[in-house]
Amino acid sequence: MSQKKTVYIGPFIQCKTLTDLDICPNGMIGVDEGGRIAFVLRDERGRKIPEGDGWEDAKIVRIQDHGFFFPGFIDTHIHAPQYPNAGIFGKSTLLDWLNTYTFPLESSFADLATASRIYNRVVARTLSHGTTTACYYATVHVPATNLLADICQTRGQRAFVGRVCMHEMSPEYYRDESVETALRDSKACIEHVRKIDPEFDLVTPIITPRFALSCNTESLAALGKLHRELDLPAQTHISENPRECDLVRDLFPESKSYADVYESAGLLTPKMILAHAIHLTEEETALIRARDAKISHCPASNTALTSGRAKVRKMLNAGLNLGLGTDVSGGYTSSILAEAREAVFVSRHVAMDEGDEAKLSVEEALYLATRGGAKVVGLEDRIGGFEVGKMWDAQMIGLEAVGPETTELDQSAGPVEVFGKETWDDLVAKWVYTGDDRSTTAVWVGGRLVHAKEGFRL
Amino acid sequence: MSQKKTVYIGPFIQCKTLTDLDICPNGMIGVDEGGRIAFVLRDERGRKIPEGDGWEDAKIVRIQDHGFFFPGFIDTHIHAPQYPNAGIFGKSTLLDWLNTYTFPLESSFADLATASRIYNRVVARTLSHGTTTACYYATVHVPATNLLADICQTRGQRAFVGRVCMHEMSPEYYRDESVETALRDSKACIEHVRKIDPEFDLVTPIITPRFALSCNTESLAALGKLHRELDLPAQTHISENPRECDLVRDLFPESKSYADVYESAGLLTPKMILAHAIHLTEEETALIRARDAKISHCPASNTALTSGRAKVRKMLNAGLNLGLGTDVSGGYTSSILAEAREAVFVSRHVAMDEGDEAKLSVEEALYLATRGGAKVVGLEDRIGGFEVGKMWDAQMIGLEAVGPETTELDQSAGPVEVFGKETWDDLVAKWVYTGDDRSTTAVWVGGRLVHAKEGFRL
Repeated sequence: MSQKKTVYIGPFIQCKTLTDLDICPNGMIGVDEGGRIAFVLRDERGRKIPEGDGWEDAKIVRIQDHGFFFPGFIDTHIHAPQYPNAGIFGKSTLLDWLNTYTFPLESSFADLATASRIYNRVVARTLSHGTTTACYYATVHVPATNLLADICQTRGQRAFVGRVCMHEMSPEYYRDESVETALRDSKACIEHVRKIDPEFDLVTPIITPRFALSCNTESLAALGKLHRELDLPAQTHISENPRECDLVRDLFPESKSYADVYESAGLLTPKMILAHAIHLTEEETALIRARDAKISHCPASNTALTSGRAKVRKMLNAGLNLGLGTDVSGGYTSSILAEAREAVFVSRHVAMDEGDEAKLSVEEALYLATRGGAKVVGLEDRIGGFEVGKMWDAQMIGLEAVGPETTELDQSAGPVEVFGKETWDDLVAKWVYTGDDRSTTAVWVGGRLVHAKEGFRL
Repeated sequence: MSQKKTVYIGPFIQCKTLTDLDICPNGMIGVDEGGRIAFVLRDERGRKIPEGDGWEDAKIVRIQDHGFFFPGFIDTHIHAPQYPNAGIFGKSTLLDWLNTYTFPLESSFADLATASRIYNRVVARTLSHGTTTACYYATVHVPATNLLADICQTRGQRAFVGRVCMHEMSPEYYRDESVETALRDSKACIEHVRKIDPEFDLVTPIITPRFALSCNTESLAALGKLHRELDLPAQTHISENPRECDLVRDLFPESKSYADVYESAGLLTPKMILAHAIHLTEEETALIRARDAKISHCPASNTALTSGRAKVRKMLNAGLNLGLGTDVSGGYTSSILAEAREAVFVSRHVAMDEGDEAKLSVEEALYLATRGGAKVVGLEDRIGGFEVGKMWDAQMIGLEAVGPETTELDQSAGPVEVFGKETWDDLVAKWVYTGDDRSTTAVWVGGRLVHAKEGFRL
């Protein structure tokens, strides 16, 4: 798709390293017709729209007041069909939660009207939270999964869409019939995406064995083969819940560990995204590192389901690549901003046990939400920051300026209030801790405006 | 103040016990001119506005769609002046956080214009979150503290307003000069409230030694004497941070424990509210139980400042009375709804260590936020639920109904979406986990409308 050349003028912020922000209070970013960043200017004095190449006629998008451009968020693990259950889990833990809440809901996606209604909401809602890339689990249903891919493309969200493979330990009413049908149906979904987006510019199919317990040695091996033959990404769960880990040990006695179950199937590759990874042994961590498989950290879900506290600092120190996942609806929120806050909070609980080094800063959580996530989904060359050549996957953040005489609330502006003495670092911290979708004024994917807040006009 | 008789028609929900909700899908509550509940009807068939006494002419307020009336929230611990710092604390813990972020901000309340601007925002914001009663710490400044009391009265929030006493371990630029000036200034604030609200109908002064480390044996004893002589409530902090506990032990060597420091000062009474109580010993728990002092649980703050995990279940089992406190700005949020979620989450972290019994349910968190908080502030006869004779301190909750054809978001409706298959329990869980101020359509204190969401007309 071709858009008008656009120049984005105003402060921009991105992650420079895991620990440091790059804050440019007075920037100018040019985005070409293909949605790619053509130039980044940060010199206050010499900042001038370049001459030639038609930039003189470019559209201008300017930050008002206390706002900034920020890279779009990457949700590396989200179950799209579970969205209506966000917040519903009682005191359950993983395995009873699946049977009580999750499988009945997912099975209803045999109905395309249900799928359409809910998938449209999920994509619209996550875009409103600034999620420019989402790594979706769908259901077993081919038509509904294909519809999710269609909706992502129509609404303009960069997405990985996975038909879920599950034939073991799943209810009669909701499962793949056999390994063969699982493979056949997965291939059908891959073909559909090839048809609507042949180069996978926006939507990419992803091979999705639900988790070891939903599969067996045979199906995992078959999916591993597909993964490598087609060079497509894959995603699954690992080591989320102690009882799950015990069951994997019982059911895969020939494997040295949970990670080894995937390793044996040829699924532990640089293109595999492993969600949770809470109870990994050191050997498993080393194996995942050696294979360069990626980790999706889902702190809100891990707390809600009492799954445990992932040791993010240890994994980072071991050289693993991590991103954040909302894990809707094990996680209650579809917002990666809220998830960043949860990552900070879970790290503080780890720190209570293991010392201050475990603490993640706001900057580190934002890194996981952007550049970290980009690496996890294998798109670090295209998204995650504002470098020339990268896609303009970005959000415009707007915070409320409280003037000396402002005593009344503007609830539509959202809860982040700027009193005037804050540093840029303070503003970012306030945004992460107290912000919500109301702070996200506009969202672009590949240069295309995919969300604008009510009342916002470019 | 006298209002028009009003009848509130529609579903209402309140806490019946610690663990159980009272859900009335089809209720009718009459509130008299004094803001007091005159009748509660819950019989679907016989539900009819009573005849006589002028109820025929009463104003009618009706719930639309998926909403319900819920008792107003009670924030049992909030530092009003720290509001602009919400979300700003880096990786600090209690004692360095106080010196780096908190004392400099609080000291700026010597300026009344600053106080006016920020206190107006705090009261407006907390009302928008459904907080009908707040237990405020102000600063050392008499004029600013009196202004906070005025603002609570003008805006109609039920409040406890405490001038903070602190003369030890506090910076030169921000402290009481002496025990004498601390007492004199505290009395001045008490007198001010007596002048504006002689019966403490809405605003009550509260005696507020900041915490043991900000005082000494002499000042604590003097404040304890004042507390008992005037029969006014008191509030302070206890056992928040391990280093703080060590210092208390060092500086009060004659005391058997942190709790005993307050006990010795005559401050451990049924009208004392102790915030945090994370690292209490069993002896301290027993002492607090024996004195019937109350606990304000502040989970968001305790996690953010890595203070520790309060053992709520143990305290409840020991017979202690607990409410929730946002502890702005150790806590990032001024919303008790968000705090209820944090209470559930911290309890899950406790459960990871100590077993499932530690888990708080959504219902239990809501109990702490309403009836629990009412006991903590000593107003259980007036607020916390919908019984005849209680004040109409209430919020109207509105959730978004997503029809079969609704694919677009209504961001102003807030993030709680009702897809139609939810039970009432599910709706409450969704509200607690995913709701925010946008779910709070209107708020009343003592029958007076004190907040209405933009666009909402009664």
